[in-house]
Amino acid sequence: MTEIAQAERRGGRPRSEDADRAIIEATLDLLARSGIAGTTIEGIAAQAGVGKTTIYRRWKGLESLICDAVAELKGPLPTLPGTSIRDDLLVLVEAAARGRESARNRKVYACFIGEMTRYPALDAQYRESVIAPRRALTRAALERAVERGELRDDLDLEVVAEIVTAPTLHWMLHNPERNPTRELLEQFLDGVLNGVARG
Amino acid sequence: MTEIAQAERRGGRPRSEDADRAIIEATLDLLARSGIAGTTIEGIAAQAGVGKTTIYRRWKGLESLICDAVAELKGPLPTLPGTSIRDDLLVLVEAAARGRESARNRKVYACFIGEMTRYPALDAQYRESVIAPRRALTRAALERAVERGELRDDLDLEVVAEIVTAPTLHWMLHNPERNPTRELLEQFLDGVLNGVARG
Repeated sequence: MTEIAQAERRGGRPRSEDADRAIIEATLDLLARSGIAGTTIEGIAAQAGVGKTTIYRRWKGLESLICDAVAELKGPLPTLPGTSIRDDLLVLVEAAARGRESARNRKVYACFIGEMTRYPALDAQYRESVIAPRRALTRAALERAVERGELRDDLDLEVVAEIVTAPTLHWMLHNPERNPTRELLEQFLDGVLNGVARG
Repeated sequence: MTEIAQAERRGGRPRSEDADRAIIEATLDLLARSGIAGTTIEGIAAQAGVGKTTIYRRWKGLESLICDAVAELKGPLPTLPGTSIRDDLLVLVEAAARGRESARNRKVYACFIGEMTRYPALDAQYRESVIAPRRALTRAALERAVERGELRDDLDLEVVAEIVTAPTLHWMLHNPERNPTRELLEQFLDGVLNGVARG
């Protein structure tokens, strides 16, 4: 459960981890099966075996719940080792690939990216609560690497951030049925760090 | 109109470019507004102002029509200059960014990528008719570059293909409201060709 969701919890009722879990799982099931368009509070309540009031007691609305469910897949922000930019980036892309253990979860990610453009409020909330903290972490790692002299200092760091993460993220989008191996993630990273042109 | 759609045309009726155009545009409008889930032959016919039979006379079904409409956005396969791998790749990523001139078209691409995982037949057809020829073109350009000694020869070319195209494709997915500038595409390419680590 993210901090946002915790802040949104209402009232003094005893917390029910079981109900929360069932609601989150039902949300992910529906997203995978029917996309955002087919995911409703009614559907989630029915699938989770709880009343709609139980959901509204815990989440402000459908957008918060969907955002939270997808954030749960990703897990907490990773801790970077700080030993080298390669080590840091490997932890970051492995974290990006986390939560894709099941076919259901991979479908959730794929549908989410595509459909979000039609749900501006959800899109904004997801960017703020999930994407922004991860981008900030990547950016901080790159800045430290420039200071340590590990990265070229003539590059726009927004461009570098895109270059180092995009192969993993794009590959996952187009291979929803598979998980990237650690070896593949390392090949992507070494390719972009060292360049693919003959030096 | 792609070759596939031409092959799927039926009967000896006079070809009506106007009706074809209206049907394609209606399909793209509906995809942008309602996603694949909300795009039906009925809806397309109503929006295009044609009868359903007019659509079925020209396309085998909804999947062929959707595939064709998105393929039309992309336009024909580009011709590569062959002067250098950088020149070839720049033409390839510019072609990948083509068809995104309007907000509507950018929404179509975004929804398409995300929702396809739930439509396996459409997914397969799109991969075969749109993605595969472009990947083959990229692959051939990379192979020529290895032969010419422009690229490192110790890399898996599938990995290289992902590295050189992913920044552009991933950036577009996350920036549906903007088009990449040529300068940005060049920064991506130079970054991955030369590497972002200090040499």
